[in-house]
Amino acid sequence: MIDDVIARWHRYMSGELPDGLDELLADDVVFYSPVVHTPQRGKEITTRYLEAAGQSLGGDAGAGTFRYTKELLAGDTAVLEFETSVGGKYVNGVDIIRCDDTGRIVEFRVMMRPLQAIHAVHEEMGRRLAAAAGEVSRSASG
Amino acid sequence: MIDDVIARWHRYMSGELPDGLDELLADDVVFYSPVVHTPQRGKEITTRYLEAAGQSLGGDAGAGTFRYTKELLAGDTAVLEFETSVGGKYVNGVDIIRCDDTGRIVEFRVMMRPLQAIHAVHEEMGRRLAAAAGEVSRSASG
Repeated sequence: MIDDVIARWHRYMSGELPDGLDELLADDVVFYSPVVHTPQRGKEITTRYLEAAGQSLGGDAGAGTFRYTKELLAGDTAVLEFETSVGGKYVNGVDIIRCDDTGRIVEFRVMMRPLQAIHAVHEEMGRRLAAAAGEVSRSASG
Repeated sequence: MIDDVIARWHRYMSGELPDGLDELLADDVVFYSPVVHTPQRGKEITTRYLEAAGQSLGGDAGAGTFRYTKELLAGDTAVLEFETSVGGKYVNGVDIIRCDDTGRIVEFRVMMRPLQAIHAVHEEMGRRLAAAAGEVSRSASG
C-alpha cells in the first residue's frame, strides 16, 4: 500500500495528481514539523504546511533544485531523503510518511540538516505562511 | 547485509559488541552531522562523534530514555527513527546508515527535530567533546 501512496506522492510533486493533497491525506493526518514541537493535526493545517514547504524547498534558481536522494519503503512507512537549496543554503532532509490501509497518509514527519538549513527554510516558510494568511484575511475582508 | 549491520548496531548500543565501533565502521566512513554542513570523514572523527552522541542522547533521568521508534531496511541502507530527551527537551531523530558489501558502515547521517531539540543536543555534545579534548590534552601534557 505504501508503494502506491509514494507513487501518487511523486505524481503530486510533479503537479500530475488532479486532486493533489486532498486525495493523498487522511482527514486525521498529523504533521510533525522540523521546527515546532507540537504535532499539527488535521488535513487543513497539514495541507497548508506541505504547500508552503513545497514552494519553499523548490530550490534556488541556478543552484541545486529539489531532488530525492534515497527512498526506503517497508510496511506502512516510507522514508524519502532529499537535497535542495534555500536562500543560498544547502538543505538535506527526510520526509517520513506513514499511510493507513486505505492508502491515505496519516503521518507526515519532516527533519532537516544542517542547522543553518533549518533556519533558512524556517524563515522562508514563515514568509510564505504569513503571505498566505494575509491573502486569506484580505479576501475575507475585501 | 544491512540487516546484519543493524543487528550489530543494536548490540553496540546495548554495550554487547566487544570491538564496538571499531568493528562497525569502515576506515573511510563519512559522518553527516545534524548541525554542521561539512561532512566529517574517517573512522576516528566519526567514532568521536558517535560516542559523544551516544552519551548525550541517552536520555534524562526520570524522563524518556533513548528508544528506536521505526526501523526501515532496504538494499544497503537503514533508517532508524528515535525519540529521547536531552536537557528536558523532547528529541525526535533519525539515523541513516549505509554499508558497503563487507558489512562496514560507510555513511552515517543524523537529523533531528524540533529546533529546540537540536539546540539542546548541540550544547550537550559540545560540552562532552570539549571535555574529551581536555582529557586528551591533559594526558598528552601530563
